[in-house]
Amino acid sequence: MSRPPFAPLVAGLPATVPFVGPEQQERERGRPFAARLGANESGFGPSPRAVAAMQAAAAGMWRYCDPQSADLKAALAAHHGIDPAAILVGEGIDGLLGLTVRLFVAPGDAVVTSAGAYPTFNYHVAGYGGRLVTRPYRADREDVTALAEAARSSGARLVYLANPDNPMGSWHGQEAIAALLDALPEGCLLCLDEAYVELAPEGTAPDWNIEDTRLIRFRTFSKAQGLAGLRIGYAVGHPELIAGYDRIRNHFGVNAMAQAAALAALEDPGHLAAVRAAVADCRLRIGAIAAANGLAALPSATNFVAIDCGHDGAFARAVLAGLLARDIFVRMPGVAPLDRCIRVSCAPEREIDLFQAALPGALEAARATVCTGGSLADCD
Amino acid sequence: MSRPPFAPLVAGLPATVPFVGPEQQERERGRPFAARLGANESGFGPSPRAVAAMQAAAAGMWRYCDPQSADLKAALAAHHGIDPAAILVGEGIDGLLGLTVRLFVAPGDAVVTSAGAYPTFNYHVAGYGGRLVTRPYRADREDVTALAEAARSSGARLVYLANPDNPMGSWHGQEAIAALLDALPEGCLLCLDEAYVELAPEGTAPDWNIEDTRLIRFRTFSKAQGLAGLRIGYAVGHPELIAGYDRIRNHFGVNAMAQAAALAALEDPGHLAAVRAAVADCRLRIGAIAAANGLAALPSATNFVAIDCGHDGAFARAVLAGLLARDIFVRMPGVAPLDRCIRVSCAPEREIDLFQAALPGALEAARATVCTGGSLADCD
Repeated sequence: MSRPPFAPLVAGLPATVPFVGPEQQERERGRPFAARLGANESGFGPSPRAVAAMQAAAAGMWRYCDPQSADLKAALAAHHGIDPAAILVGEGIDGLLGLTVRLFVAPGDAVVTSAGAYPTFNYHVAGYGGRLVTRPYRADREDVTALAEAARSSGARLVYLANPDNPMGSWHGQEAIAALLDALPEGCLLCLDEAYVELAPEGTAPDWNIEDTRLIRFRTFSKAQGLAGLRIGYAVGHPELIAGYDRIRNHFGVNAMAQAAALAALEDPGHLAAVRAAVADCRLRIGAIAAANGLAALPSATNFVAIDCGHDGAFARAVLAGLLARDIFVRMPGVAPLDRCIRVSCAPEREIDLFQAALPGALEAARATVCTGGSLADCD
Repeated sequence: MSRPPFAPLVAGLPATVPFVGPEQQERERGRPFAARLGANESGFGPSPRAVAAMQAAAAGMWRYCDPQSADLKAALAAHHGIDPAAILVGEGIDGLLGLTVRLFVAPGDAVVTSAGAYPTFNYHVAGYGGRLVTRPYRADREDVTALAEAARSSGARLVYLANPDNPMGSWHGQEAIAALLDALPEGCLLCLDEAYVELAPEGTAPDWNIEDTRLIRFRTFSKAQGLAGLRIGYAVGHPELIAGYDRIRNHFGVNAMAQAAALAALEDPGHLAAVRAAVADCRLRIGAIAAANGLAALPSATNFVAIDCGHDGAFARAVLAGLLARDIFVRMPGVAPLDRCIRVSCAPEREIDLFQAALPGALEAARATVCTGGSLADCD
C-alpha cells in the first residue's frame, strides 16, 4: 500500500516496542531458556488459593467480567482502609500508566522521568504526544530533587517515580516522597509506581491519604502476588482523579479470571509473607553469588538484584549475552551508568542454581571478547 | 479539589459509560438475576477443552503473557489460511476498536456509523475527539448505501459496520460488504465487526483478502466460543495496517489465560458446531415464545433475538422493566425505531424457560402502565 492512513500522531511514532518477551527470544534462539530470571516474575508462584479460584472460575468464563471489579475493589478498600471510590482496578500497571498519560497529558505537554527508568511509561508518553524530560539517577537511585526541579522548569503535567525502583532495586523512604510532592509545581501529578512495594522495608510506602490531589499510586498483583500473566493492578488516588478514568477506559477490560484470582490472593496473607521471606533469602543468595565472582550486588527492595559487573555497558552486555547463550534469561538497564549492571530476578533455588553455574563462564567469555577487543583498557 | 487537571480532550468528555454491567444492576436491585439473557453471552459455555486448558494453566500465571500471542496467532493463521502478519490478537473487540480509533482518527476527523449501533465504538470515537456521523437503519438493517454516502460526504476516516448486526441480529451477504468497500472514499477504512459471524449463514463473511487495504475485520472468542470473561479477540487486515497497532498497543495486555483458552477452543470445532446448533434451536424457541405472546421475533444471524414489542420505545422499555423486575436480565436498543424491540440472548433451556414464564406478566404490566398512562393511543 502507498502509505497507511494512520493519524498524524501515530504516523510519527517509531515501530519499536518497550520489551521483547522471553518467548520471542526463545523462538529466535530455537530453544527454551532453562531459567527465567529476566522479567521480575515471581517463580514462587501465586497463592494456592488463587490457583484454586482460577480453576473453579474456568467454566464460568462465558460471562463478561464485572466492569466495576466491585468485589475486588471492596476487598482492596478494606485491606488498605480506604474509600473504594479512590481505587480503580485496571489491566496491570502498564495499562493503567497508558490511561494515566491519556488522562493528563495533551500533545506537547512535558512529562518528567529518570533516564533509564521504566521504558513502558516512556512509550505511553510518546504514544500520546507528550514531551519527555529526563534526569539522571544519582548513586543508582532516582533523584527526587532533580525530578522536582525538572517538573518546575518544564511545567510538567506528570512526574513518574518507581519506588522501589526498577531496574536498580533502590528505594526512597516515605519522607523523600513527601518532599517530592511538596516540591512539585501546581497542577503536576506524581505517578508513584509501587509495583514492588510489598517487598520493600517498612516506611517505604507513604501512609494512604486519598485527599491528596497531587499523586496517583499504582499497585499490582504481578510481582509479590505472582499473577503477572493475568494482567491486573490498581490505581489509588483522590476520587475525582480516579473518576476520570471512567471517561476513557475500556470498561470491560479487566478479565474475570484475574478478578477472581486477585481476590483470592488478597485473602491469603500467609502466602504473601512466605514470598516475602523467600525473596529476602534469594536476594542474599544472589548477592553471595555475585561476591563469589568478584562482583558487587546492589541493595534491593524488590524481587530482583542488580549486579554491578564492574566495567561499562559493553562489558555488562557481554555478560548478559553469555548468560543468554547459557540459557539463562536475564535483562539489564539500558542507559549508562546503570548499564554496568545486569538484573537478576529472585526465583526458586533450582533456577538460581542454574544462574550460579552459568555466571563464571559468562564472565569469562565477556572478559575474553570485550577485553581482548580493547574496548576496556582495565579489564582484569 | 478545584478542578482535576485532565487534558482538554478528556475534560470535555461526559462521565457516562457505554454499558452498565448486570452485576452493577444486581447490586442496585439487592438480588441476583435468575436468567442472564442481556449481554449476548454464551450460556452454553466454553469448550471443555478450553476449561481444561485454563485449569492446567492456572499455576503458571506467575509468568507474563507472550506479548506476541504467537501460538494463538499461528493457530488462527492456519485456521483461516492467512498470513500471521495479518492478525493482531487483542483484549476483545472493545479494546481493539479503541486502538483502531486511536490509530486512524485525529481530533475532528469524521467517523461514520449507524444510529443505534454499538455504543462502545461511539465511546471510543468520542474519547479520541472524533466527530461521529450517523445514518439510520433501514428495515432493521444497517444501511450500507447510506453509510458509504455519509463517508463520502463527510470525508470520514472510518466506517463502522457490524455484520451480523448488534442489536438487531440482521445481516448482509458478502456482496453487500464488497459494494460498500467499493463505494468508500479514498483513505477511508471499513471497521467490520464480525463478533457474531460464526453464528451467521454461509456467505455472510467475505473471503479473506489481506491484500485489501480498505478494511480491518474483528473477531472474538466472546460469543460463539463462550470466553467473554477472558477478553480476547483479534483483528485481521493488511499487514501494514496491522503493524500500526504495535506502535500504540499495550504489548503485555492479552492475558496468558485467555491465550491458552482461546488456543484450546480453536482446536475444538465440535464444540463450536454444537453451540451453533443450540443457538439455532434457541432462536426458533425465542421466536415461538414471542409469537405465543402476540409479538414478532426478527430474523437473527446471531446468538440473540430482537423481539418487536409492537409499539414504541416507551412500551418496550416498560416490557424490559417488567422482565428485570421478574429477575430476567435483558437489554434493548437505545434508538427509535429500533427501540420498539427488546433483545434476548440465546441460552440453555432452563433460562429460556424462566424468560417464557416471565414474559406474559411483563407484557401485561407494560400494557397496564404505559397504555393507561395514555402514551400509546393504540395499546392492545
